[in-house]
Amino acid sequence: MRLTRHTDYAFRMLIHAATRAPELTTVGEVADDFSLSATHLNKVAQTLAAHGYLETVRGRSGGVRVARDPSLIRLGEVARATEPDFQIAPCMGDDGDCPIYDPCVLRGALNQATDAFIAELNKWTLADLVKPKQQLVAAILAAQG
Amino acid sequence: MRLTRHTDYAFRMLIHAATRAPELTTVGEVADDFSLSATHLNKVAQTLAAHGYLETVRGRSGGVRVARDPSLIRLGEVARATEPDFQIAPCMGDDGDCPIYDPCVLRGALNQATDAFIAELNKWTLADLVKPKQQLVAAILAAQG
Repeated sequence: MRLTRHTDYAFRMLIHAATRAPELTTVGEVADDFSLSATHLNKVAQTLAAHGYLETVRGRSGGVRVARDPSLIRLGEVARATEPDFQIAPCMGDDGDCPIYDPCVLRGALNQATDAFIAELNKWTLADLVKPKQQLVAAILAAQG
Repeated sequence: MRLTRHTDYAFRMLIHAATRAPELTTVGEVADDFSLSATHLNKVAQTLAAHGYLETVRGRSGGVRVARDPSLIRLGEVARATEPDFQIAPCMGDDGDCPIYDPCVLRGALNQATDAFIAELNKWTLADLVKPKQQLVAAILAAQG
């Protein structure tokens, strides 16, 4: 079972931005520090901005920052925003090419399990993720060599 | 978020076999009825047999059948057996190439969410999945044309 790269990048971008606050960070810095694709990270930043998690400051000393109090950013909600869907099995899309689609009970079980996954993630906020702020800052600095 | 094809196939194979009981089914029939790859389904059958969920009857009129009371086959346990891992994010493997691996809090959150997913699935058994047995039999027959 895997989250998409989009969600993985989104969590790391939010952690980087919240660790850097009140200073700004940039997509380029997050890409460098975590060795991630800047192109893909740009799309992730757009998704996070569209959902009100990140805001962009334009200009020469511009960058991005977390747009809300981190204690109000619930991880399950972030995942709902960044995962393209939660079609945990192929039958959960619209293709419906499974012959037992109509009487199938499995879909209900998988939906409830996915809801439980999200509900558990929603017990955690971005503030929880950056509680060890000093260690996070030090680890990111160390990676920069 | 996606389960692997291995787990998707495993659930469908178990549903097919439990619907057919007490008669045997075969990998070929499951592959035909669900339009799945027989090669891949063979590997799935081996995994299910290795974990004691399926048993093989050899010979000309051989096939496979569910090896335990379906009410004792919990879906979360099946998923644990058939998913190669539950590394919901890349950092949950052994590569550990994320610079904030040590102070990271996200891993704990994702692990707890995955546990909640499995715990919810474990509330469901194979017996639940084949409760609408008549409708399942009819749907599979209809698909055979």
